[in-house]
Amino acid sequence: MYSNVNFDLGGNCVRVLDQTRLPNEEVYLHLSTPEECYDAIARLCVRGAPAIGIFAAFAIAQIARNESPSHEDDAVFFARMRQVSEYLASSRPTAVNLRWALRRMEGVMGACEGRGREDTLAALQAEALAIQAEDASICERISELGLSLLEDGWGLITHCNAGAIATSAYGTALGPMLLGAQRGMQFHVYADETRPLLQGARLTTYELSKAGVDVTLICDNMASIVMSQGKVQACLVGCDRVAANGDTANKIGTSGLAIIAHHYGVPFYVMCPTSTIDMSCASGGDIPIEERNGDEIKTMFYSRPVAPASVPCYNPAFDVTDHSLITAIVTEKGICRAPYDQSLAAIMKG
Amino acid sequence: MYSNVNFDLGGNCVRVLDQTRLPNEEVYLHLSTPEECYDAIARLCVRGAPAIGIFAAFAIAQIARNESPSHEDDAVFFARMRQVSEYLASSRPTAVNLRWALRRMEGVMGACEGRGREDTLAALQAEALAIQAEDASICERISELGLSLLEDGWGLITHCNAGAIATSAYGTALGPMLLGAQRGMQFHVYADETRPLLQGARLTTYELSKAGVDVTLICDNMASIVMSQGKVQACLVGCDRVAANGDTANKIGTSGLAIIAHHYGVPFYVMCPTSTIDMSCASGGDIPIEERNGDEIKTMFYSRPVAPASVPCYNPAFDVTDHSLITAIVTEKGICRAPYDQSLAAIMKG
Repeated sequence: MYSNVNFDLGGNCVRVLDQTRLPNEEVYLHLSTPEECYDAIARLCVRGAPAIGIFAAFAIAQIARNESPSHEDDAVFFARMRQVSEYLASSRPTAVNLRWALRRMEGVMGACEGRGREDTLAALQAEALAIQAEDASICERISELGLSLLEDGWGLITHCNAGAIATSAYGTALGPMLLGAQRGMQFHVYADETRPLLQGARLTTYELSKAGVDVTLICDNMASIVMSQGKVQACLVGCDRVAANGDTANKIGTSGLAIIAHHYGVPFYVMCPTSTIDMSCASGGDIPIEERNGDEIKTMFYSRPVAPASVPCYNPAFDVTDHSLITAIVTEKGICRAPYDQSLAAIMKG
Repeated sequence: MYSNVNFDLGGNCVRVLDQTRLPNEEVYLHLSTPEECYDAIARLCVRGAPAIGIFAAFAIAQIARNESPSHEDDAVFFARMRQVSEYLASSRPTAVNLRWALRRMEGVMGACEGRGREDTLAALQAEALAIQAEDASICERISELGLSLLEDGWGLITHCNAGAIATSAYGTALGPMLLGAQRGMQFHVYADETRPLLQGARLTTYELSKAGVDVTLICDNMASIVMSQGKVQACLVGCDRVAANGDTANKIGTSGLAIIAHHYGVPFYVMCPTSTIDMSCASGGDIPIEERNGDEIKTMFYSRPVAPASVPCYNPAFDVTDHSLITAIVTEKGICRAPYDQSLAAIMKG
């Protein structure tokens, strides 16, 4: 199985692909402390809602092993690990998968109280590997369901990166493209570059071209002209959190893309595991939106600053797409359509 | 009068601000050959539909003087200058002001046949200065009319750069902001960075902040979230060509912005001199759209490439905003509203 996140058992660390270095270099980080793991998420070395969740689970398992003196009381050990879990949860606010995975790891810790330390550490490691393996089969199922919505030869557009490196395998939004390519289908994919951090340019084109998918890079603001020319038959995006009414938080720019797709009558599909659905958020207004440093807009990547130093930037990392603009939400448990309050409730109960 | 384009009479050249070096450096180019002038337009050292027209007029006047041996026959001289004019006209296809200004200069040449060479050269120089002076008063009038549509304290959004450096003074879309600031009004302007060439980041924030206007830089894909938050009461953009039915070609991304503004019920104003209106184009489909090199997306500005070298880019420099999305077109002759085929015909006759 292709995997960005692994235990490096000899090195007492988690081994993870540094996505900030792509596409120029494939560099792996070896992380062993809470601070290193927090930083890897905050700096987007690991990104993509499912991948963040998987990585956090691996981080908890590894940190538990590394920082677990055998003479320490269980109560002290568990209390400390819960602090580590809270600390990692605070690294990024929007994607709910991070909290979901950490809650699973906390659940294992709760179930292990009173068992021997080695058993607990083994259980944590097993749970992290289970989360990763489950995600791989979930992504495969999402890819199959997503592919059922598409026809051979279609033009597709995607925003940001929701591929294998954002998950465990296949990805969510890129899953049907990759699965279709394996089956000899020919999609023509337009990849939004996705400012400011260029995940589309750096990661999506890298993954799709590596897999032999026909991909063309465009700037985010070119989606309208491409759709006006009839080149796009469907939009596919991943997401970071879905509210109970179907409102969806995803990478900044997604809501604009959805509005433009709606204008041109192009179907707009959101693809995610059910771990991304947060029934405790009634609507998109309840989803916290991360705001990042303006230097990502003005200076990062560039050889010289592209705006006067004194000019302020507004840099929200996500936006919320209104459920009325979403044609369907594709999960491993099925394809949900409006009214989303009913369809999402049904699969979350099932 | 503030001016980007001047005759440098001692140096036998046209002196022009190199906009590609902003905001880091204020460098002036000194251009004296057809090739240098063509290159300055093609490389966007001079940009903005009105500024291109003004510059081309100056270029014709200066090249005529530089390349005008006194023993040469008038017929040979005029034929050569018409070739130069055609050559300069081919430097960029979309903005119609370039052709409009060159036609005016050709008209002067036509009227000068049979007069002495020095008279002809003086007439060409006078015409170039007249085009520039007219543009300044046109921009001032557009700014006044545009300002009449706005209220103190409003949030505004603009795309690309339609300020003083894109024209002769004030600008078109930035004109009401600059004029309002002079009168003590407080607008809060969101400037789209405008990928791939970052005219918004580099030029609009530079001009507005220099003039004391409150400006915040955002990525193009953040327009939707900003409007969803109620921060924007009007969109103001310039344009490169308006068809007879009101369809408007402007910097790539404008049509997406207009669709998003329409979705949120934010009025969308296009501001331009009547020289930008091309009644010979029935609709936007007749406007040629320049396609530029994909390296502008993948490598320009960056310290390292941001996408794999093998991945193709699509890089249209403009798109067409459908007239149904435009609240009004503001010209020096008045504010046109739908139905545009009638309102534009009326001001173009008047």
